[in-house]
Amino acid sequence: MSEQMFRIALASRPDGAPSAENFSHEAAPLPVPGEGEVLVRVHYMSLDPYMRGRMDDAKSYAAPVPIGGTMEAGGVGEVIASNSPAFKPGDFAFGMFGWASHGCLPADQLRRLDPAMGPVTAALGVLGMPGFTGWYGLTELGRPRAGETLVVAAATGPVGSMVGQVARLAGLRTVGVAGGADKCRLATEMFGFDACLDHRAYDTASDLRAALAAECPDGVDIYFENVGGKVLEAVFPLLNEFARIPVCGMVAWYNAGALGAGAADAGLSGPALWRSILVKYMSVNGFIISNHFDRFPEFLSQVAPKVASGEIRFLEDIAEGLENAPAAFIAMLEGGNTGKQIVKLI
Amino acid sequence: MSEQMFRIALASRPDGAPSAENFSHEAAPLPVPGEGEVLVRVHYMSLDPYMRGRMDDAKSYAAPVPIGGTMEAGGVGEVIASNSPAFKPGDFAFGMFGWASHGCLPADQLRRLDPAMGPVTAALGVLGMPGFTGWYGLTELGRPRAGETLVVAAATGPVGSMVGQVARLAGLRTVGVAGGADKCRLATEMFGFDACLDHRAYDTASDLRAALAAECPDGVDIYFENVGGKVLEAVFPLLNEFARIPVCGMVAWYNAGALGAGAADAGLSGPALWRSILVKYMSVNGFIISNHFDRFPEFLSQVAPKVASGEIRFLEDIAEGLENAPAAFIAMLEGGNTGKQIVKLI
Repeated sequence: MSEQMFRIALASRPDGAPSAENFSHEAAPLPVPGEGEVLVRVHYMSLDPYMRGRMDDAKSYAAPVPIGGTMEAGGVGEVIASNSPAFKPGDFAFGMFGWASHGCLPADQLRRLDPAMGPVTAALGVLGMPGFTGWYGLTELGRPRAGETLVVAAATGPVGSMVGQVARLAGLRTVGVAGGADKCRLATEMFGFDACLDHRAYDTASDLRAALAAECPDGVDIYFENVGGKVLEAVFPLLNEFARIPVCGMVAWYNAGALGAGAADAGLSGPALWRSILVKYMSVNGFIISNHFDRFPEFLSQVAPKVASGEIRFLEDIAEGLENAPAAFIAMLEGGNTGKQIVKLI
Repeated sequence: MSEQMFRIALASRPDGAPSAENFSHEAAPLPVPGEGEVLVRVHYMSLDPYMRGRMDDAKSYAAPVPIGGTMEAGGVGEVIASNSPAFKPGDFAFGMFGWASHGCLPADQLRRLDPAMGPVTAALGVLGMPGFTGWYGLTELGRPRAGETLVVAAATGPVGSMVGQVARLAGLRTVGVAGGADKCRLATEMFGFDACLDHRAYDTASDLRAALAAECPDGVDIYFENVGGKVLEAVFPLLNEFARIPVCGMVAWYNAGALGAGAADAGLSGPALWRSILVKYMSVNGFIISNHFDRFPEFLSQVAPKVASGEIRFLEDIAEGLENAPAAFIAMLEGGNTGKQIVKLI
């Protein structure tokens, strides 16, 4: 095998928003699978907000990507060589192949996909990590009850759209927040949100709060936190007693990191925040889905049939070419994508 | 019945720490029990930090005490008249009689006590609301596992001492924080804490943190939050991944309300706090025990035998006379009590 593979490495750590210079495009010899290993040609790779955290040299979910190391990502692709009885060439599999044209992993780190069951890209979104994140966070930490009201931001994203749809199916009023009128229309028309507010249409958290309050006449029982920033500031004072706040991401703060000017008034800083948690009996739970893979089979068994039947819908935003992954990633962090961001490699 | 009763009313709302002028001592005709009601002469009443919250005209657990209204409190006493078949004169009962010499309540709001089972004052502390608060918060929201490390402040108080003892019996390393060397000695010698730190011996949260870190070599898995302020600031950066923070009180902030100068460094303000909740997968849960009375029988059945056997110990600090309740309450908010604060009325 004298063929080459290509990968995208972390060239330098971003200070704030990442830019093209933080990434480098590298060629390398195609790996030869060792005992028990499987070589996969990646067809689609996933871009997710958590990857921004991996670019920093700071304590987070996991170790940072080292300078010169391949950016992390999940991908789906076709087995082209196998030293494991568990896979044969032509099989399709999901694995953490990174931002790369090929991946070589032990067979037990791969999950077999059946292309006859639907598009393999679903394993990156609605039936993959983002969908699982939304389902787990909502059902386990959000503890939804019929008649309650849920708010989630990035409502057309793969996490937010799962949260909204599972909540609606559980009988909740669902109010989304998204960036732009088009996404808001998608949220209500495609994903069935009862309402969706365009955060760009409101200059301040306080204005957004007034609009949310109008859409949440009974207050907010679950705020699924996947963005932080202005939306958190807008929602926080609207939370009811016994509110649940699953916290799975803070994308608004990945690049920057200051509360807005109205945060103190919103009770988000200092003792006021702790006092709110106390007097409203709030339940605030941070989580990362990789700690809960034991629940993945349950997720698939509950959600995959609803995806197949169309009860749960999904939307993908597919960029073309590994070389365009950095630009797609940078745009995604600014909300430039609509639906699950994927890169098509071949 | 031309007899009189006495009560202590809220004369004015405190601005910061309460003072004697916020309370008034009033006489009133002894109530006559209506149909189904029971008249009780109060022997002991309870003083608890939550009462400070009731003095403010702000959103909290419950409606504030109105100006001129009787301060709220639980008490134990002897039935002196009954219009209910459930109680007869001479029976002992617990009820929310307020800061008052007598109370008249419907029979279904009273809980019968058996003086043969031990001192009736236990119903105000170790086997009452504070002990139940510690047990519920620790077992349900703290989810203790053998080998973990717990930190709790006010370690000799009725909540903190229950938390520490239940945690120790569950196999945790228990580290208390208390005000003064005498209380720290009590915490280790009487309540079995592995260590107890005197927060008064450390000028800053940072100094207290260094001392706590030395006593918690494996970090902190459960911080039972009942004080807020400097202790929270000291503990927060020591919390491990998957840390649980049951939040039942913030007595350090009841009177004042600003974070210390080092709060930002401790990650307690703004995005840093939310980021910590996320990246450490923290579980922060505010609660007030009155929402969980359905668990009270389970609490009693688990804890009362351990109190009877001496496995769980308790300490009471008894002031004499209803007229001294305000002074005892004011002192308690400053940490002047040692053990459960009770007022003996007769």
